[in-house]
Amino acid sequence: MIGFTGVALVRADNERDDPAAFARCLADPAARLLVLTGLEPPVAEDGALQLAAMDPARRDALLLGYLEGAPLFVAGEGDGSAPAMRSPALMAALAEMPAADVALYGIARSLVDWHSRHGFCARCGHASVVARGGWARSCPGCGALHFPRTDPVVIMAVEHDDRVLLGRQPSWPAGRYSALAGFVEVGESIEEAVAREVLEEAGVAVAGVRYVASQPWPFPSQLMIACIATAADDALRIDATELEDAFWATRDEVRAALAGDTTRFIAPPGHAIARSLLMAWVVG
Amino acid sequence: MIGFTGVALVRADNERDDPAAFARCLADPAARLLVLTGLEPPVAEDGALQLAAMDPARRDALLLGYLEGAPLFVAGEGDGSAPAMRSPALMAALAEMPAADVALYGIARSLVDWHSRHGFCARCGHASVVARGGWARSCPGCGALHFPRTDPVVIMAVEHDDRVLLGRQPSWPAGRYSALAGFVEVGESIEEAVAREVLEEAGVAVAGVRYVASQPWPFPSQLMIACIATAADDALRIDATELEDAFWATRDEVRAALAGDTTRFIAPPGHAIARSLLMAWVVG
Ligand SMILES: [Zn+2]
Ligand SMILES: [Zn+2]
Repeated sequence: MIGFTGVALVRADNERDDPAAFARCLADPAARLLVLTGLEPPVAEDGALQLAAMDPARRDALLLGYLEGAPLFVAGEGDGSAPAMRSPALMAALAEMPAADVALYGIARSLVDWHSRHGFCARCGHASVVARGGWARSCPGCGALHFPRTDPVVIMAVEHDDRVLLGRQPSWPAGRYSALAGFVEVGESIEEAVAREVLEEAGVAVAGVRYVASQPWPFPSQLMIACIATAADDALRIDATELEDAFWATRDEVRAALAGDTTRFIAPPGHAIARSLLMAWVVG
Repeated sequence: MIGFTGVALVRADNERDDPAAFARCLADPAARLLVLTGLEPPVAEDGALQLAAMDPARRDALLLGYLEGAPLFVAGEGDGSAPAMRSPALMAALAEMPAADVALYGIARSLVDWHSRHGFCARCGHASVVARGGWARSCPGCGALHFPRTDPVVIMAVEHDDRVLLGRQPSWPAGRYSALAGFVEVGESIEEAVAREVLEEAGVAVAGVRYVASQPWPFPSQLMIACIATAADDALRIDATELEDAFWATRDEVRAALAGDTTRFIAPPGHAIARSLLMAWVVG
């Protein structure tokens, strides 16, 4: 199971431009509301995501779509301008949450966070307003329509001679290592982004990029694209501004870390696609 | 060859925060400048992209990176607010251009276009300024840093019983059909986006999504992610707001269209990944 995926939310894109459909959802007695406080999820005693009944008088809710046939809204309260980082407490709560709830939280968080950081039109500077039931913002000044942003990121298991390249950033918990990653830039393919990032960060030339899996990552809103690539050789030239350290891990070392052994390094956490990627690499 | 890829531009991300490196590039006698007029490319007599010598006094140029060891800048002139569409004349010019030049033009166009439509801070509405050598905008009002946007899009060959699902949008040239496509939304994986788009547009449930290839698309700045997926059945329920028509094409029909036969339909043009995708599907 890939983290932050697997919720049966019907997004109903074709209803987003229909104010009558929105009003119908608002008035639906079965409608529910997810309230994020400072972007954190409400968690019930059993660890699941806690949904409340929708208050039809509420004017700040975004329509996520339909869940089990009933309209589902989300609203953000508290400090929505909090840095879009994940706390250890949040990651622990998500580790106990049903997978579909984690995915739903991810969608809701990314959407609420995007609105909170995009209150103005990038084209003309005018204050913008919520549009399309919560899935866009429109500008009364110039008429521009702005859509939520999703940034593609490549994350890659670079292999050479039956070992995989792992690195760590200074901000990570001590001992944690993971696959290299970076944003796909304007004007490049996934394959080109993988090659550029590995060359920039570790000084290694790669070829034969193979796609493995993808996952949304709601901190704040990435599309993680996991690949395996083959390095031409194993000499490293680490860019210290990007990585604190990097090394070639054997299959046994990765297998041990994934099993919880922290002797050599601490593996990526549960919901990160880096973990799924290393598991895919270990089994070949 | 995948369109809009394959230029050996060294982006030198690690120098973007270094004003001294930028000044050095500006003063480099080997530095060159690409000028886009109304986002259109300057084309030399032989069909290649025309680069000029850099004018070190110029203050509006963005540093793309290094090409063949020399700094390469880009500047936009004329109407940068032109709708980010592609004209038939432009596509014809690109069809005659060397592949690396096409890729370079794509990067330059997306970057210039992004700046022209993002002159203000989305967080506070203040006018923003170019930062990081052209690869970001910073806000003097609130300190936010904004990066060029790349929107992931899935495009999929949906197959059933040795046929592939093709559709057409009303705005396309008469007779043109292509693979279905749509933006990856906040909070979904590539695989989930493929399934949602096919269900929304054609009423078809799919499974077994396989990644094929990716490509940047500079109209204005998409990351096209091409996949093949398998439909559960072939009954269509077309969403008329998205598609004008759709049908299941046989392998022979697709092969004929790719070879230039327009009897059944007109295949996607050369630089579109839809064409590469259909070619991959035809050979199985
Ligand atoms: Zn505006
Ligand atoms: Zn600002």
